[in-house]
Amino acid sequence: MTPTASTVFDTDTASTPAGEHRYALELSDRWATTVGGPLNGGYLLATALRALQREVPHPDLLVASAHYLRPGTSGPAAITTETARVGRRTATGQATLTRQNREILRVLATFTDLTQHRGATHTSNTPPELPAPEQCLDPFAEIGSPGTTIAQQVQYRTPRIPGFFHGTPGGTTNAEFWMRFSDGRDPDPLALALLVDAAAPVVFDLGAVGSSTIELTVNIRHRPAPGWLACRVRTDYLTNGLHDEDFEIWDSTGILVAQSRQLALIPE
Amino acid sequence: MTPTASTVFDTDTASTPAGEHRYALELSDRWATTVGGPLNGGYLLATALRALQREVPHPDLLVASAHYLRPGTSGPAAITTETARVGRRTATGQATLTRQNREILRVLATFTDLTQHRGATHTSNTPPELPAPEQCLDPFAEIGSPGTTIAQQVQYRTPRIPGFFHGTPGGTTNAEFWMRFSDGRDPDPLALALLVDAAAPVVFDLGAVGSSTIELTVNIRHRPAPGWLACRVRTDYLTNGLHDEDFEIWDSTGILVAQSRQLALIPE
Repeated sequence: MTPTASTVFDTDTASTPAGEHRYALELSDRWATTVGGPLNGGYLLATALRALQREVPHPDLLVASAHYLRPGTSGPAAITTETARVGRRTATGQATLTRQNREILRVLATFTDLTQHRGATHTSNTPPELPAPEQCLDPFAEIGSPGTTIAQQVQYRTPRIPGFFHGTPGGTTNAEFWMRFSDGRDPDPLALALLVDAAAPVVFDLGAVGSSTIELTVNIRHRPAPGWLACRVRTDYLTNGLHDEDFEIWDSTGILVAQSRQLALIPE
Repeated sequence: MTPTASTVFDTDTASTPAGEHRYALELSDRWATTVGGPLNGGYLLATALRALQREVPHPDLLVASAHYLRPGTSGPAAITTETARVGRRTATGQATLTRQNREILRVLATFTDLTQHRGATHTSNTPPELPAPEQCLDPFAEIGSPGTTIAQQVQYRTPRIPGFFHGTPGGTTNAEFWMRFSDGRDPDPLALALLVDAAAPVVFDLGAVGSSTIELTVNIRHRPAPGWLACRVRTDYLTNGLHDEDFEIWDSTGILVAQSRQLALIPE
């Protein structure tokens, strides 16, 4: 990709300054999770973070915490931002995404320059051990992605296709697979904030037929290198219809670049 | 405890309504982490959440996401709150804690009635396997807690005392131990938001001599039963001086009641 190429992610997360820390945008139906259904939460988050990014001097998202208030649908929307503190190393602010004057999500986010951090490194974990992407399967190749338009923007490659993709939940609560933007756009911290929410919830393999995010926090640990991203996801605790989902993304050089946790609700 | 008994936690997190969603309070030096040092981040968070709790109809904290902007010190402070959405099942709002007109932390939080959630349960993990508290050690018994006043409000019982407590970091990045309020106050969701941040960071056993929280998210999964709380903490990724810390709290009946993750910075 040349830096000036227009990508679906960049086009669909763009907003126009409207003065007084307000931005106008059009939420795109290219990130729907089901036919005519709500837009992907990671996509909604990325629009808000991209507007907020313009208000702070630090180049990289470090951590974002989003609370989801209502489902997001395509069409005209607005983002309002507020900067809470701009420091030497970090800056923190918040953004609110509204559609039809109803608040869709509110997010707090802290930005930094990830290349300026120095210090100790000690990790207890290693990247997912996956066959090369070309030796893996495309879970949407057979079933297609009718209505799930996000599956046209993001490519997935997995060593085994979870049972729920074929209507037979297999009872697994973790998975490892590859992911990247279909149009070849390279990942960056804002894109990672979308991608940690871009895969089907692993609780689908426990038989859940839906999952609504209540809160999602994503930590960006390093600027990602170009190429396929290795993902590791798991749900440790589904209790009374509420579940966590932990998501890790490792870049093509084997570096952990993002980790997220969400708390979500399986609709009754 | 009788419900009307005054406890240190209740006294020190109380604030007085000052109109227009503002609250006044006195931050107490009983929750300091070092001599004359900053106040514990979990304590600061609990003050903000307790004020916000008054503005929403739902009785239980479900999830809180706090961004820490400056160290908190004891003395007069103010909290401002804003309700974003009040729904049937959940309500979401935000609170800002300021001291000397400088913002200390900003938090988004969603409340619910935890007893009203129904649905599937599937867990991949079990409670910490710990000897009974009376068979465990008090890590502060020998070294005392000069300046670390929080160690007077919270009791810890551990099967083995981490090396850093005696000046010899042992290189472990996980721990399991018991915790409770020293004055016998029973835990509740707001108290859990403090307690997930009340233990010494496990990165101290890697030789770190400080750790400043940037962001902390805590999910409350169940109202806790009275009694000792079994805790499990680990840091998987310390990279370039930034580290995660995952914390689980299980109640005395073996139920997961809270899980948190923080992103923190080891000062250079």
